[in-house]
Amino acid sequence: MTRRIYLDHAATCYPKSPVILDAMHDFSMHHEAAVGRGAYRASQHAGQIIARLRRELAAWIGAAGDQEISLHPGGTAALNAGLLGILKSGDHVVTTAAEHNSVLRPLQHLVANNVITWTVVPVDAQGQVSADAVLAAVTPQTRMVAVVHAANVNGAVQPVDAIGRRLVDRFDPASKPLLFCDAAQTFGHLPLSVTQAHIDVLAAPGHKGGSGPLGTGFLYVRREAQDRIRPTVFGGTGTRSESLEMPHDYPASFEAGNLNVPAYAGWLAGLRSRRDHASPQETLATSQGRLAELASELYSGLDQVPGVRVIGRPHVPVLPVASLAIDGLAAGDAAMILDSEFGIEVRSGLHCAALIHAAIDSPADGTVRISCGETTMREELESLFAALAELSR
Amino acid sequence: MTRRIYLDHAATCYPKSPVILDAMHDFSMHHEAAVGRGAYRASQHAGQIIARLRRELAAWIGAAGDQEISLHPGGTAALNAGLLGILKSGDHVVTTAAEHNSVLRPLQHLVANNVITWTVVPVDAQGQVSADAVLAAVTPQTRMVAVVHAANVNGAVQPVDAIGRRLVDRFDPASKPLLFCDAAQTFGHLPLSVTQAHIDVLAAPGHKGGSGPLGTGFLYVRREAQDRIRPTVFGGTGTRSESLEMPHDYPASFEAGNLNVPAYAGWLAGLRSRRDHASPQETLATSQGRLAELASELYSGLDQVPGVRVIGRPHVPVLPVASLAIDGLAAGDAAMILDSEFGIEVRSGLHCAALIHAAIDSPADGTVRISCGETTMREELESLFAALAELSR
Repeated sequence: MTRRIYLDHAATCYPKSPVILDAMHDFSMHHEAAVGRGAYRASQHAGQIIARLRRELAAWIGAAGDQEISLHPGGTAALNAGLLGILKSGDHVVTTAAEHNSVLRPLQHLVANNVITWTVVPVDAQGQVSADAVLAAVTPQTRMVAVVHAANVNGAVQPVDAIGRRLVDRFDPASKPLLFCDAAQTFGHLPLSVTQAHIDVLAAPGHKGGSGPLGTGFLYVRREAQDRIRPTVFGGTGTRSESLEMPHDYPASFEAGNLNVPAYAGWLAGLRSRRDHASPQETLATSQGRLAELASELYSGLDQVPGVRVIGRPHVPVLPVASLAIDGLAAGDAAMILDSEFGIEVRSGLHCAALIHAAIDSPADGTVRISCGETTMREELESLFAALAELSR
Repeated sequence: MTRRIYLDHAATCYPKSPVILDAMHDFSMHHEAAVGRGAYRASQHAGQIIARLRRELAAWIGAAGDQEISLHPGGTAALNAGLLGILKSGDHVVTTAAEHNSVLRPLQHLVANNVITWTVVPVDAQGQVSADAVLAAVTPQTRMVAVVHAANVNGAVQPVDAIGRRLVDRFDPASKPLLFCDAAQTFGHLPLSVTQAHIDVLAAPGHKGGSGPLGTGFLYVRREAQDRIRPTVFGGTGTRSESLEMPHDYPASFEAGNLNVPAYAGWLAGLRSRRDHASPQETLATSQGRLAELASELYSGLDQVPGVRVIGRPHVPVLPVASLAIDGLAAGDAAMILDSEFGIEVRSGLHCAALIHAAIDSPADGTVRISCGETTMREELESLFAALAELSR
C-alpha cells in the first residue's frame, strides 16, 4: 500500500506505535499464558502485566486506585458492561443527543423493554449540551446521568466536569445519580480526572487516543459505586470455580474468560513509552496543546475552501475533528474520491451517532468527517485542503 | 525466559505460529483501519479480511454459509452472546455437569433471575454424559440442549452428534429444541460438522485449537435459528446509524463496536497456513490422529508413575488432556513445583468447571491438569513423567 494520509483517527489511531506491536509480539512469542489461571510463573507474569496496566490506567484518569479499573475487549464492550450492569427496573436516565450509538443503543434497548425511562437532552447547533439543561432533566428517579466527553461527529467537548460538580452540590452522596462518561474520543487525548470531575463510571477504548492496540478497552467504576454494578458477561474467572454464581468482586468478576494479555501488554507498553518519565497529566497537557493547535489549523483551513460547509462547528474547537459537506457531492462519494484520487482516508455518513445530526443540520446522507491524531502533519492537512478545493470546484 | 515445557494448551495454545503474529503485525503496520465504517480502500480491505475469515470458519465447522458466523473477542463472549441472546422467559434448558463455567454461569444467572428453568444431566465417573439421559431430560418446554463437545477438565468427548440426531428424529423442525455446543476444547482439534451433527448454535475461541491469537472467538448460528436470537451487546454497527435500535441482521448486529481486525487477520492467516492446500476436514482428520496418539502416550505414561492417580479417565482418551492427583501433595503445590523445579507448566485447581468434580472424584482442592497441543513432543511428556515420579516419591 502506498503512503496513506490517514484522517480517521476518531475510528482508530494509525499508525500504532511500534512499541505497542513489539510488546505484543514479545509477549506472544515468549511469555504467552492464560492469566489468573495457573500457578506457573508465565501465568503469574501475565497477571503482573494486568496489574501494572490497571495501575497505569488509573493514573491516566486520576482514579483513586487500580481496583477501580476493569479490562474489556473494546470501548463498546466496556460501555455495555457499565450501562447494562448498573441500570435496573424503574431507573430514569438522563443522557444527551451528542452520544454515540454505543451509549444510545444499550439505553434504547432498556427503554424498549420497559426497564428504564430516559430523557435525552438536546444539543445546540454546535453539538453542545448545556449543564443547565442536563441538571434540569434530573428527577428524584434519576439513577444515572450519561454524558459523552466529546462528540465523535464534530469533536464538541461537553461540560462533564461542570455537570459532575453540580450533581455533587445538589445531592447528598446516598441519592446522587451516578455520573457516567463515555470518554471514547478523549481518553489519552485530553486531561480528565474522574476524581475532580466527580465521575462515577467511565469507559473508553484503548485504540483511539489511548496508545493501545485494537481489542482493548477499560471501565472505571468508583469504589463507592461498585456495589451498584453486576456482571453482564458470565464465565470462568479463575476464582471460586466451585460456584455457579459469578463472584461479585469488581474488577475480577467483570473479566470472565481469557484476557487478551498480548494486547494488554501492548497497551501497557504504549502508555508507558508515550509518557516516557513524565506523569500522565503532563503528557495529557502536551497532547491537549498539540490537538488544539491542529484543531485550529483544521478549522481555519476548511474555512478557506469555497464550496465546503463546516457542519456543527464547535464553540471552541478543542479536538481536530470536523464534519463537513461539499457542495454538489454526496458524502460517501466524496470520501471515495478523496481516497482513490488523493490517498486521503476519511469517513463519511452518520458516524454511528443517531441523534446529533438534526441539531447540527447535517445533510441527509451525513457528513464527511476529518479526524486527526497527534501525529497528523501540517502537510497532510494542506493536502486535504487542496483536494477539497478540487472536489468542490 | 528459559525453555518452557508448556502443557496448558487447554487454556491457550503456545507457542502461537509465527504466521499468526506476522499477519497481525503486517496488518497493524500497513493496513490498519476500522472495518465497515469507511469508504476508503483500507477500510474495505479490512472488510475483506473479515469476510474471508467468516468463510474460512464456516468451512472448518461444515456450516452452510459464511453468514452463519459472527466474530467475538473470545469464546466466553461468544457463548454469552448465544445463550443470553436466545433464551427467553419460560424456557427450559437441558445441559450437562461436564460444562465449563462459561456455560453454567450464564445459565445460572438466568435461573437465579427466574427467567429459565434448567436440568443438569449428571456425568459418570469418566466425566461422560449419556445421550439417553440427555434426551430423557427434554420436555415440551425445552428450548435448548447445551452440550460441551469435550470437557476441559479431563478431555472427555460428549456424544453431541448422537444427541443431535436423536433430537431431529424426535421433534419436527418447528418444535425441536436448539442444540447448543461449546466447542472450546475441540474447535481446530477434532472434526465436527454442525450440519451432520444437527448443531444449531456453536461457540468457540480462536486461541486454543483454533490456530488464532488471544482475543478471538466466533459464534455459529444456523440460518433457520437466526430469527430466534437477539443481540446482547449494543452499539455502533456502521449500518442504519440513524436508528436507536440495533439492526436485526445476523451476523453484523452481533458485532457492535470496532472489530479487532489485526487479531482476525492473524486468525485467518493461522487457519489458512495450517491447512496449507488441504481442506479443513483433511487437516482436522490429521490433527485428530496426532492428538489420539498423544492422548495414548499421556495416559499410558501416567499409569506407570507410582503415586499418581488419574482422575476421570475417559472411556476412550481422544484428547491429550488428563487430570491427576499426586499422593501427599496439594494440586497447587504440585503445579508450582513442576514449574519452578522442572520448567513444566500445568494448571491446578477446579479449572472453571463447577459440576464435574464430584462425579469424577477430584480431591477437594482440585486436580493437576495436563493438556497438550499438536506440537507437544514425546520428550516433553517424558520430562513430565520423570518429574511426577520425583514428586510422588
